[in-house]
Amino acid sequence: MDRTHEQEEIVQMWERMETAIQLGKIDQFRAEFLELHPYDQATFFKEQAKEIRLKIYTYLSPEEMAEIIENIGVDELDPILTEMEPRFASQILGEMSTDDAVDVLNTMDQNEVASFLTIMDKDAASEIKDLLHYEEKTAGSIMTTEFVVVNTGMTVRDAMVHLRKEAPDAETIYYVYVVNQEKHLVGVISLRDLIISEEDWFISDIMSDRIVSVPVGENQEDVAKMVRDYDFLALPVVDFQNHLLGIITVDDIMDVMEEEASEDYSKFAAVADMEKDLNAFSAAKKRLPWLIILLFLGMLTASLIGRFEDTINQVALLAVFIPLIAGMAGNTGTQSLAIAVRGIATGEIEKEGKVKLLIREAGTGLITGTCCGFLITIIIYLWKGHFFLGLLVGISIMFTLIVATVAGAIIPLLMHKMKVDPAVASGPFITTINDLISVLIYFGMATIFMELLLH
Amino acid sequence: MDRTHEQEEIVQMWERMETAIQLGKIDQFRAEFLELHPYDQATFFKEQAKEIRLKIYTYLSPEEMAEIIENIGVDELDPILTEMEPRFASQILGEMSTDDAVDVLNTMDQNEVASFLTIMDKDAASEIKDLLHYEEKTAGSIMTTEFVVVNTGMTVRDAMVHLRKEAPDAETIYYVYVVNQEKHLVGVISLRDLIISEEDWFISDIMSDRIVSVPVGENQEDVAKMVRDYDFLALPVVDFQNHLLGIITVDDIMDVMEEEASEDYSKFAAVADMEKDLNAFSAAKKRLPWLIILLFLGMLTASLIGRFEDTINQVALLAVFIPLIAGMAGNTGTQSLAIAVRGIATGEIEKEGKVKLLIREAGTGLITGTCCGFLITIIIYLWKGHFFLGLLVGISIMFTLIVATVAGAIIPLLMHKMKVDPAVASGPFITTINDLISVLIYFGMATIFMELLLH
Repeated sequence: MDRTHEQEEIVQMWERMETAIQLGKIDQFRAEFLELHPYDQATFFKEQAKEIRLKIYTYLSPEEMAEIIENIGVDELDPILTEMEPRFASQILGEMSTDDAVDVLNTMDQNEVASFLTIMDKDAASEIKDLLHYEEKTAGSIMTTEFVVVNTGMTVRDAMVHLRKEAPDAETIYYVYVVNQEKHLVGVISLRDLIISEEDWFISDIMSDRIVSVPVGENQEDVAKMVRDYDFLALPVVDFQNHLLGIITVDDIMDVMEEEASEDYSKFAAVADMEKDLNAFSAAKKRLPWLIILLFLGMLTASLIGRFEDTINQVALLAVFIPLIAGMAGNTGTQSLAIAVRGIATGEIEKEGKVKLLIREAGTGLITGTCCGFLITIIIYLWKGHFFLGLLVGISIMFTLIVATVAGAIIPLLMHKMKVDPAVASGPFITTINDLISVLIYFGMATIFMELLLH
Repeated sequence: MDRTHEQEEIVQMWERMETAIQLGKIDQFRAEFLELHPYDQATFFKEQAKEIRLKIYTYLSPEEMAEIIENIGVDELDPILTEMEPRFASQILGEMSTDDAVDVLNTMDQNEVASFLTIMDKDAASEIKDLLHYEEKTAGSIMTTEFVVVNTGMTVRDAMVHLRKEAPDAETIYYVYVVNQEKHLVGVISLRDLIISEEDWFISDIMSDRIVSVPVGENQEDVAKMVRDYDFLALPVVDFQNHLLGIITVDDIMDVMEEEASEDYSKFAAVADMEKDLNAFSAAKKRLPWLIILLFLGMLTASLIGRFEDTINQVALLAVFIPLIAGMAGNTGTQSLAIAVRGIATGEIEKEGKVKLLIREAGTGLITGTCCGFLITIIIYLWKGHFFLGLLVGISIMFTLIVATVAGAIIPLLMHKMKVDPAVASGPFITTINDLISVLIYFGMATIFMELLLH
């Protein structure tokens, strides 16, 4: 079946479902709709107008709606939850995976949260309350409490019986965690190992006791790195006494990875965070703080050039090359910055050594600086017929590129050392710093060699 | 058990293992080493000197070594595979997951690959050959052929027997794929569903037949997005006739996500790709092409300012604010570029509409431009006591920010439309373009209003 054919079929199916809703043919709609993967259900649901959505609420159970809601981004949920009956909404929240429900509640104000929890099923409410107080971006904030746990004393048969019972509610049943009588996490066994074991073997004999876990306060980025390195499908979360508190599953880890990648990227561009569904005012509000800081940094550069006003008065031609030199400094700084920030994020630099990186960057700056400097000297000589001006710009570019390349690497390393997230050292920030450095080098040299220029 | 205690224990264990190797106590080393997670085994192995590694090869089977090699980055493997006996190395490659073995072979030259395949076990060699010809970064290049497949006619009992037999070799057993007699992919069933089903039910009755699959030529980034959206642990890969060719598991998807994030990031900074273990020469070689292109773009800006040499001769003070204005244009352009590139990458912009984005960016530029322009007018007035100069710079900044903000969004959108990867529109590129725009606005206005400035 080819792609267009497939797409046509989807369009037809959507039309059938929409007609079924409009005609009130509940069974026909449910038969087709519930066959879909929850992600596709969510895609269909989101496209519908409000009056259709209101009908869908009456056709589906809270449990069925929960799966749809789990597949809609939390930032899109507010109008949806508001248009439902509060009791229905709270039932849905109760049926959702605890970690997903907590994500949704975290976007609401405290009064709303309290009122939802009050009308919610007691068990669900208490599970959610347990998770609500974990700090954002920690292991605790992304874990779920719906995991399968067995005791060391059980046999494989007992464990499988228990597993089958827990399967409908558990986030994953592919890893089963083993606790001792004090509820300490002592082992893990995969379903893969369970099904190839004899039924009367003891869990304690076949479980793996070299268990990898994370403390509940661990940073979510480090948790993601661990899951990726170890190829886990889930990772247990423990408190400081090694009690099992929850698990983090790989699907949530993928969301964390996407979130962190977007975050690194936006910080690099000096945008507070990625903007969604924003109007111009809120976008401007997010970007202005950065722009104003950079404006003041730029004023420093301007006042520095101001000191060389006499020099410019003597040779106006000098001004022509300011953006070129400042620009090249910014470009090379951005390049080495990206290498350094990414190297820190992936842990590559820890292993390789910082001194080695700085030496390499200095070498890279020397080579690129020499090449670009040589090139520009020739171009300006050919263009303006002024050899000394060419040489001045060329040598300035050479020194600027060396210093700017090293600056691009050293600033994030210093920040990392000072426990500041190095991704905050954005491209524009480095570019503006390097503007300053390049102007200092250029006009410093021009003032020293003024004699030669005036010839 | 607290963290420091845990780390101490690891150090002690490493020392015990190292001593065991040096004393030739094979059993003692194996007992401790094989208890570890393969990722930890790899970490230990990588830290050892060559003579220790050569001993380890004699202590472990190819199958055991394969798990270690799978946990070492392909770019670090060359010295390791070279120092082994070729037969041992080819045995290891044969024991590895097919997709991982293919990744390793793809880093070698054709002669090496051919010689490894010749001495390899026939079955493994033929599986690897099948995968070697898929294009890089497609679904085919990251899939594995070790999956579990059952027929529609089987019962749950048959399927479980088959599953237990296949478990040791399969990449995952948590999804079982169902094919019909023509080997077409017709369904999927999770192990979760299998173990809660009655043993004499037919697979065809309980399988899900709305199966999501990807064509073998699909871009790996799109595959990753799919796995993340649908929360799959694995995704089947099919040919154009819907024959099941392989599966892609979530652990490989996480690697793809990491790779793509690094790639977007490095393109944004105008670095060809992330450099690993490079010296200054090869780093310079990768960055120079970009820098030279930007140098020529910068020369355009310089020649543009050259046309205003008379203006500068009249008011040298004008030159002071060139880097400030050009810098602000670069900064705001980088911000809106990041929003646009990321929005295209995540598919957010497709949904929202491009015109809406451009209007919003223009609005954002107007607001930030007005704020920054107003601020700079006041600062220059207070600093230089020159109101018209302040106003000139302020108004230039305002117009520059509007144009630069829109340019930052429009250029990646155009590239996307022209099927060029918009991430190539790097920060430095936009910054250099915006240098040009800003200089044009600034000196254009200065020339027009020269009268007022000379007062």
